[in-house]
Amino acid sequence: MEGQTLYDVVIVGGGPAGLSAAQYAARLNLKTAVLDKSKTAGALAFTSKIENYPGIPEPMTGPQLLDIFRNQAIGFGAEYIETQVVGVNIGTNPKEVYAMDNTYYGKTVIIATGSMGRKPSIDGEKELLGKGVSYCAICDAAFYRDKNVCVIGDSEEAVKEAEVLSRFTDKVTLIAPTAKLKASGHHILDVGKINVVANHRVTKINGTDSVEAVALLDNETKSEKVLPMDGVFVYLHGNRPVVDYLNFSVDISDEECVMTNRMMETNVEGVFAAGDVSCTEVRQVVIAAANGCVAALSAEKYINHRKKRKMVWG
Amino acid sequence: MEGQTLYDVVIVGGGPAGLSAAQYAARLNLKTAVLDKSKTAGALAFTSKIENYPGIPEPMTGPQLLDIFRNQAIGFGAEYIETQVVGVNIGTNPKEVYAMDNTYYGKTVIIATGSMGRKPSIDGEKELLGKGVSYCAICDAAFYRDKNVCVIGDSEEAVKEAEVLSRFTDKVTLIAPTAKLKASGHHILDVGKINVVANHRVTKINGTDSVEAVALLDNETKSEKVLPMDGVFVYLHGNRPVVDYLNFSVDISDEECVMTNRMMETNVEGVFAAGDVSCTEVRQVVIAAANGCVAALSAEKYINHRKKRKMVWG
Repeated sequence: MEGQTLYDVVIVGGGPAGLSAAQYAARLNLKTAVLDKSKTAGALAFTSKIENYPGIPEPMTGPQLLDIFRNQAIGFGAEYIETQVVGVNIGTNPKEVYAMDNTYYGKTVIIATGSMGRKPSIDGEKELLGKGVSYCAICDAAFYRDKNVCVIGDSEEAVKEAEVLSRFTDKVTLIAPTAKLKASGHHILDVGKINVVANHRVTKINGTDSVEAVALLDNETKSEKVLPMDGVFVYLHGNRPVVDYLNFSVDISDEECVMTNRMMETNVEGVFAAGDVSCTEVRQVVIAAANGCVAALSAEKYINHRKKRKMVWG
Repeated sequence: MEGQTLYDVVIVGGGPAGLSAAQYAARLNLKTAVLDKSKTAGALAFTSKIENYPGIPEPMTGPQLLDIFRNQAIGFGAEYIETQVVGVNIGTNPKEVYAMDNTYYGKTVIIATGSMGRKPSIDGEKELLGKGVSYCAICDAAFYRDKNVCVIGDSEEAVKEAEVLSRFTDKVTLIAPTAKLKASGHHILDVGKINVVANHRVTKINGTDSVEAVALLDNETKSEKVLPMDGVFVYLHGNRPVVDYLNFSVDISDEECVMTNRMMETNVEGVFAAGDVSCTEVRQVVIAAANGCVAALSAEKYINHRKKRKMVWG
């Protein structure tokens, strides 16, 4: 890691848990990086109206609240980096976090990737995952140069990922389950490089060893069609903790959430988890923010005192 | 309890934990009462500047943040009642909360009285507690009709309590440890009924079976004097969980905090605790708010489902 920055805290995830952790860590004078896949991804980013966050009396949109959290974290000195984390090595010292743009080194790592993970639900999706089915165009786009690919979804994130793919191939189809894209501020139809099929549901992903085609159902006419396809990027929302990039390097429960004690410590020293990715019964912004605060304080204790705490599993 | 309101949730304490619990409970359509000793009491009320509450980018005073929390709770339909709780009976159904103005009945109770409790520190304070030494003028003022009483403190709460005492006796002395009262908007010197001794520290409370006098030290001249006294009301701040009114009806730890599991359940069914009064390692507004949210959701579950949960003590 010569010439590389050594952070005190590398936070994976830029939702309320990660940004609250960043704020508290930076305020404790810790060198802090937040690695966020996208400002437009995550459960809060998809929330159109939030009115029950204590301390904020007027209803606002999820992205507005996220902006406040993010600006606070940056204001206290945290670095915010928009990048996708694809793997970690947290048994080493320093710990390593592998992102698309760089490897980040941290004395501690806070896992805060939320729970918008995808649980395969389309016929063939599970079987062909990693064989043409992907949840990360930024990670895998380069494999599909000049090939037939589609993105399934209608969100801003889906459109962005389609745009990423369009840098590698002209044969990008965006299959939207709705008649109108939810994405705003995009002019993909103008660009003409992305073929949009709206109001269609993918009923099946075909292929044996790899993806060969997708079957579509027109929501209105109920007519079916099949499109030849090499890659399928699914951007429909799920609600599974996003833990795949951890590759089981921390203890994960049967419900696939990251197990922590009350101090948000995982079973790995110097690694903490906060928010919806952790095993919580209540998914609320204020809980995620509180988790982030606790995780940051625990990270500070670990760095500055390295006092062993009794692990109390709850 | 004929003719009395049966609340779904009676919340004791109007700090961030209690008000957040009130907001979430009311929003869940639960009939909710918040019993708050005073808008000017509690750790947050004494905070002059807060800038690390996630979601609130500009620094504000503790009372300003409390106002927002309170208005949100009231906006969602919670009843806010300024009254002092002096006891509880939580083994019954409904549970009973005894306040100065009334008895409140609740299907559930959320304990959120914070940690500004007094740990006796003045010579004689501990020995004469309940024998002339009191932490609640509103509770005990009537015992001191026409007697010599003093209030020790310089806060708004101390001044208010001195005013309460002055309704019962003309011989009220306010002994302030500082040269200037921190209380604002009070005109006690105009009223002339309260004798203010500023910049003096009480070094000893004298008496055998009951309070007889207090010894004072002038901070500037270092001269001492003794004032005959029947009652001493101490309004200096402490940092002990406020649990005395519970009279050990819930499990209290050795550190005198209320023990809960992660769902903020105490050992008594239908009784929850949140914020600094509960056993927490981190005292932050956002933690208290998150605790309040969880306690409210747990109360709702208890009322509407009465599902027995496994108690997981952490």
